[in-house]
Amino acid sequence: MTDKRQRAEQINRVVLAFSGGLDTSVILKWLQQTYGCEVVTFTADLGQGEELEPARQKAALMGVKPEHIFIDDLRDEFVRDYVFPMMRANAVYEGQYLLGTSIARPLIAKRQIEIARAVGADAVSHGATGKGNDQVRFELGYYALQPDIKVIAPWREWDLTSRTRLIEFAEAHQIPIPRDKRGEAPFSTDANLLHTSSEGKVLEDPWDEVPDYVFSRTVNPEDAPDTPEYLTIDFERGDAVAVDGEGLGPADLLARLNDFGRRHGIGRLDLVENRFVGMKSRGMYETPGGTILHLAHRAIEQVTLDRGAAHLKDQLMPRYAELIYNGFWFSPEREMLQAAIDHSQQHVTGTVRLKLYKGAAHVVGRRADPRHNLYSAKIVTFEDDAGAYDQRDAEGFIKLNALRLRLLGQRG
Amino acid sequence: MTDKRQRAEQINRVVLAFSGGLDTSVILKWLQQTYGCEVVTFTADLGQGEELEPARQKAALMGVKPEHIFIDDLRDEFVRDYVFPMMRANAVYEGQYLLGTSIARPLIAKRQIEIARAVGADAVSHGATGKGNDQVRFELGYYALQPDIKVIAPWREWDLTSRTRLIEFAEAHQIPIPRDKRGEAPFSTDANLLHTSSEGKVLEDPWDEVPDYVFSRTVNPEDAPDTPEYLTIDFERGDAVAVDGEGLGPADLLARLNDFGRRHGIGRLDLVENRFVGMKSRGMYETPGGTILHLAHRAIEQVTLDRGAAHLKDQLMPRYAELIYNGFWFSPEREMLQAAIDHSQQHVTGTVRLKLYKGAAHVVGRRADPRHNLYSAKIVTFEDDAGAYDQRDAEGFIKLNALRLRLLGQRG
Amino acid sequence: MTDKRQRAEQINRVVLAFSGGLDTSVILKWLQQTYGCEVVTFTADLGQGEELEPARQKAALMGVKPEHIFIDDLRDEFVRDYVFPMMRANAVYEGQYLLGTSIARPLIAKRQIEIARAVGADAVSHGATGKGNDQVRFELGYYALQPDIKVIAPWREWDLTSRTRLIEFAEAHQIPIPRDKRGEAPFSTDANLLHTSSEGKVLEDPWDEVPDYVFSRTVNPEDAPDTPEYLTIDFERGDAVAVDGEGLGPADLLARLNDFGRRHGIGRLDLVENRFVGMKSRGMYETPGGTILHLAHRAIEQVTLDRGAAHLKDQLMPRYAELIYNGFWFSPEREMLQAAIDHSQQHVTGTVRLKLYKGAAHVVGRRADPRHNLYSAKIVTFEDDAGAYDQRDAEGFIKLNALRLRLLGQRG
Amino acid sequence: MTDKRQRAEQINRVVLAFSGGLDTSVILKWLQQTYGCEVVTFTADLGQGEELEPARQKAALMGVKPEHIFIDDLRDEFVRDYVFPMMRANAVYEGQYLLGTSIARPLIAKRQIEIARAVGADAVSHGATGKGNDQVRFELGYYALQPDIKVIAPWREWDLTSRTRLIEFAEAHQIPIPRDKRGEAPFSTDANLLHTSSEGKVLEDPWDEVPDYVFSRTVNPEDAPDTPEYLTIDFERGDAVAVDGEGLGPADLLARLNDFGRRHGIGRLDLVENRFVGMKSRGMYETPGGTILHLAHRAIEQVTLDRGAAHLKDQLMPRYAELIYNGFWFSPEREMLQAAIDHSQQHVTGTVRLKLYKGAAHVVGRRADPRHNLYSAKIVTFEDDAGAYDQRDAEGFIKLNALRLRLLGQRG
Repeated sequence: MTDKRQRAEQINRVVLAFSGGLDTSVILKWLQQTYGCEVVTFTADLGQGEELEPARQKAALMGVKPEHIFIDDLRDEFVRDYVFPMMRANAVYEGQYLLGTSIARPLIAKRQIEIARAVGADAVSHGATGKGNDQVRFELGYYALQPDIKVIAPWREWDLTSRTRLIEFAEAHQIPIPRDKRGEAPFSTDANLLHTSSEGKVLEDPWDEVPDYVFSRTVNPEDAPDTPEYLTIDFERGDAVAVDGEGLGPADLLARLNDFGRRHGIGRLDLVENRFVGMKSRGMYETPGGTILHLAHRAIEQVTLDRGAAHLKDQLMPRYAELIYNGFWFSPEREMLQAAIDHSQQHVTGTVRLKLYKGAAHVVGRRADPRHNLYSAKIVTFEDDAGAYDQRDAEGFIKLNALRLRLLGQRG
Repeated sequence: MTDKRQRAEQINRVVLAFSGGLDTSVILKWLQQTYGCEVVTFTADLGQGEELEPARQKAALMGVKPEHIFIDDLRDEFVRDYVFPMMRANAVYEGQYLLGTSIARPLIAKRQIEIARAVGADAVSHGATGKGNDQVRFELGYYALQPDIKVIAPWREWDLTSRTRLIEFAEAHQIPIPRDKRGEAPFSTDANLLHTSSEGKVLEDPWDEVPDYVFSRTVNPEDAPDTPEYLTIDFERGDAVAVDGEGLGPADLLARLNDFGRRHGIGRLDLVENRFVGMKSRGMYETPGGTILHLAHRAIEQVTLDRGAAHLKDQLMPRYAELIYNGFWFSPEREMLQAAIDHSQQHVTGTVRLKLYKGAAHVVGRRADPRHNLYSAKIVTFEDDAGAYDQRDAEGFIKLNALRLRLLGQRG
Repeated sequence: MTDKRQRAEQINRVVLAFSGGLDTSVILKWLQQTYGCEVVTFTADLGQGEELEPARQKAALMGVKPEHIFIDDLRDEFVRDYVFPMMRANAVYEGQYLLGTSIARPLIAKRQIEIARAVGADAVSHGATGKGNDQVRFELGYYALQPDIKVIAPWREWDLTSRTRLIEFAEAHQIPIPRDKRGEAPFSTDANLLHTSSEGKVLEDPWDEVPDYVFSRTVNPEDAPDTPEYLTIDFERGDAVAVDGEGLGPADLLARLNDFGRRHGIGRLDLVENRFVGMKSRGMYETPGGTILHLAHRAIEQVTLDRGAAHLKDQLMPRYAELIYNGFWFSPEREMLQAAIDHSQQHVTGTVRLKLYKGAAHVVGRRADPRHNLYSAKIVTFEDDAGAYDQRDAEGFIKLNALRLRLLGQRG
Repeated sequence: MTDKRQRAEQINRVVLAFSGGLDTSVILKWLQQTYGCEVVTFTADLGQGEELEPARQKAALMGVKPEHIFIDDLRDEFVRDYVFPMMRANAVYEGQYLLGTSIARPLIAKRQIEIARAVGADAVSHGATGKGNDQVRFELGYYALQPDIKVIAPWREWDLTSRTRLIEFAEAHQIPIPRDKRGEAPFSTDANLLHTSSEGKVLEDPWDEVPDYVFSRTVNPEDAPDTPEYLTIDFERGDAVAVDGEGLGPADLLARLNDFGRRHGIGRLDLVENRFVGMKSRGMYETPGGTILHLAHRAIEQVTLDRGAAHLKDQLMPRYAELIYNGFWFSPEREMLQAAIDHSQQHVTGTVRLKLYKGAAHVVGRRADPRHNLYSAKIVTFEDDAGAYDQRDAEGFIKLNALRLRLLGQRG
């Protein structure tokens, strides 16, 4: 690591993605000590539901200049330009994960690079460990947007090789150590308007049920109301625009759905997933509004999207989700897939009705006006369809689809 | 249709897939009248939960010879050779449908052809309409297995162009007309050990919520127990073999899971789907045990399946599901995909624990013994890993993954 | 077929895709006789290299009104809006076929529908047989663009069940029968600016070598010049724009490449292919300029297209080619794929140099200016790269790519 | 790198993939000097066409014990277990490269690990640079087969940072430096029974035509015979088994095809490709017999493989080729794809006839006996088919394929 430190001499100013929590506070101090450079902090409001002013105060206390403390409200940009495009794709990773952490990283990276340019910084830094996916997501974003940027990833460089040693360092430097609601050092968590995740500690044995105290964004389904609740979501061109008929901006809309989801215990997920770096990890996710939105989007597509488009989307989706999970948001192939997906959404306009009850959301109705609707009761009916469909056409359809199978069967 | 009837002269003996219900009773009569040929009935026990002896009596009453009435228990074959291989693939059609009807058709077709050979029949017949998928699934199966078989699809030939006219024909020929629990002519339904489906009537408006009386296999989640229930499922090489530690054969195992699912209102689905014949239809599905099994299979794969295999499976799955939905079970491409999927299941062995509550099943734990397990707490831990993983490796990993993105960013 | 004829009563005016050749002349007469309706002829100049005025005279002789004879030069539209978009995708069907016939059909269908609207016709007709792909390509185009159009496909309706009977009909009605260069009734052929194809007759045995007299667009490679010839093609955003530095419009450019290809015997293909209708057929294709263009496009992508985009394109291509082959040009899924492909072509700008010799084209060089170029000799060099690439990064890259494989190997 | 050297202390015995050429001779010396450990050499005969005894002498001269010099003839294993399975897939990377280098690396890695086990070595080493793909291919193989093996990659560790400095080291240690036919230090090349490749030097500018002296395996097409030559290849279950009717083992068969290819200048390729490590490189490949085999395999599939299987293969192929190129031969996903591909080859049995002329191979005929053949002239004929195919079936086929497109067109 000597050569690392030698390179360190050349860092003048570094922009740190700073949450104000334990890890990034330790990193702030460590960067100052190790690199002797000016640290610029950037704290993003992505709807994680925490006060951000304490982050400002912490940074100031640790010697960051006021003009070098950036706290930005990115909630609408996050939902409009990241969450919604991903929802158009019905993206889920490994069949279940709604990508709540993955989708936030590119935006943080993008804003961090913008700040680096604005303040003339030559480096950026983040608090992600060397075992996880987030380091990859941050750094692929940095390099894509600013190819010559220097990246400092303290977890890969320092000798604080465990959470325990990190806490020792914090104690030695008077950095306050947060405790969870049980008085213990917290899980590794991430939160934004789309989701909250936790990893580590008791979750490390994937046979043990996730204890209820780990969840923070949703009520336990068993404590949810005994009466179902209904809501409607309106979509325009693939994006949600209103809840129960009330038009809402992207962030407000997702927040509203989160309220619904929280009340009914919607969107809890216990998952063992495959990280890009090659290991399996067990995590807990809460995606209350996102789970509702995902289901609703599929439902509105059911009546407005052509089969050819829908099946192509289903076939492309796992690859698209993998790209986001692995950190390739700013890549030509993600953009190509997005172009295809967005092209399909021109008529994904209409209304979906859902029922929420005890931990699950169920679609109960969907409709679109005639400019967008593709469902035809007239054709599908079991009753007389007045010639809308000629059942005899099916014979030829089947015969020609069968032809190659018959030739196979006749062989030999 | 004159030419059809002319061809009819040449039919000597036809094997009819006969449920004993209204449609196939009408067809039995119509075949005898129109083709003047001998009708052989075949009734499969696929676990649809109905008495099959009445079908024998009906057939006999309508003049079918005793030795030409076939009633076969195919439940174990159905689950072992059709449902389980499909579950290995985690197959879902259009993101949600577990293919309960689709997967039963090839087996019926196969047995029907076997009977046709045994009794020297030159034709087969079925009761599927000319608008649906089932005609395709039956007939692709027939043609693949017996390329020169004649197929009679009455719904595409006769002039009973609606359900109403069908009922008139039945009345005119003293064929009893079943009524649903509300005293009305029934929905178009299908049932087997995996699922029950309904289409038509009140379901034809996809904005209207499915009334509770349409469901028959599961309790309403609101009426399900207020206390969650837990169960475990053991898997060997991708197939479920035990529930709560009790080893069970394929059909018994699925029946057991159906009991669990029924009690807790698991597996109800309200879907607008795209039929192979080109139209959209709205259906209601109940797949109680299958929903639990699907979730559990994904969970055991989480700890036993390599990422490369898992992601390839996820990418192939939509195509595989489409093949089954469209009726191409007996096709080279489905078999190729099956070969790939089955190859991946060699180590999919272990135990999953689930919690059932008020309409939803949640995985709460999964484990595998060291011969099969790929999850390593030692590597993933946030604590000191004793060198199991060198965090510095991540730098090179990211740098080389970023190289092409940096070159893109530097262009121009 | 009685019911067909009955429907025929209702046809008032039909637009026929009319080449002026034997088949469509017979059809013109047959439509007049059978449907007693007014026939409008449409003859497209797609660069097939034939005089089109004789088609006008033939139509007039057979009683078509002058204002109902349409002869349109569609060459530039064909190349710009159909051939070039397809070339951007590097589309080949079944590994070899450059889709020369398939890509022309949608344009003919589109123009035919435009004419039908202009003249108030209620039907369209074409000369494709009931065994081939072209009927599908025409009719899917018609239906997509004008859902309520009536389609008359004489080959599927009449009793001229063979080429022999067709010729008898022609003789009986004084329709001139063309002879090939050997004095025989011709092969089934198709020609346009992109290619010429032949099927049938001596080609029907796929073991027999295609006789040289079947080829019409290229010299026999053995008769091609003994000296190689070089050329350059310039691309802008994925489309060819100049040959040997001379800027050319789409049709002129392809014609120029055809000249090169013809001289050197480039682009002959002997193929057994799988038709959409389920049978295999053997055909001969000549695609002189298209073969050169295809190779050149791949070559310019080699230095301007990112790997992620290139591999995604390669993975999507077989599906894209299949859609075009099967006639789904005017489908949402083809348009989605096109959106993805076109997005990738923004920087596919530069120059390719090729060498033509005795039946083969070889790329010998490619270059792009720094705004578009992604190839870097500085990075790839075996000599000292002055830090452009740190070879030690590869260790971490490999270690993390290997991690899951090592875990697999350690299992058990 | 100090820590590397420190780790070096613990190496006792290392198995080096030793070609006897300049690079691996330097490495042998460097390993002895740097790690002070015993070096075991392994030289594989993969049909590279060089004498291997000189490698033995060199190793002995540099102090390797006789019992630690392994020279193995792997030619048949190479073709049978690596080349042929890949040919069954019709694998080409980036549309053109037949993967001649990529496919040899896993076999070398496998044998190297076997030797390491036999001699009790704790490490393996290879001569691939830190910029290329081969390091990845070797090391992924090592780690997959022996997860705890130590890997020494000198090019990533030493300070010989260029070819020039390598040559200085060789001169300083009396290691003979080969010269190419022009008296210069050679290109970076690789050769085996399937192909020869060259990279670097004059090839580094992708605009410059590859000089003829770079090619070594094939005559210049311009110097090839003026008369075409014909040959036949027999296939059984997807693998070539005879040439011109003469049954040959795998290696002999490929050698025979190489002779044909060499004479006629077949299989030269000038390519700019995307390496797995993120950069583009320009290479020259000669794959004489492999090019013929690839074409022939596609041709025999044309008459024996069903469309569904063929198209699925075409869609899977780019991913399969990418896996081999990237070094994931020993991975679950490559094995899954292989299982699918191999399943499809059961009837790929028959004979292909090809014509070789002036740098190109052309398929001119293919046939299979009735047990395997799927091509039916009876069905495809333009003449009367005696009812083999009912052209009227096409109407229904088209109508139902068009239904969703018509609904799209009618919308709004």
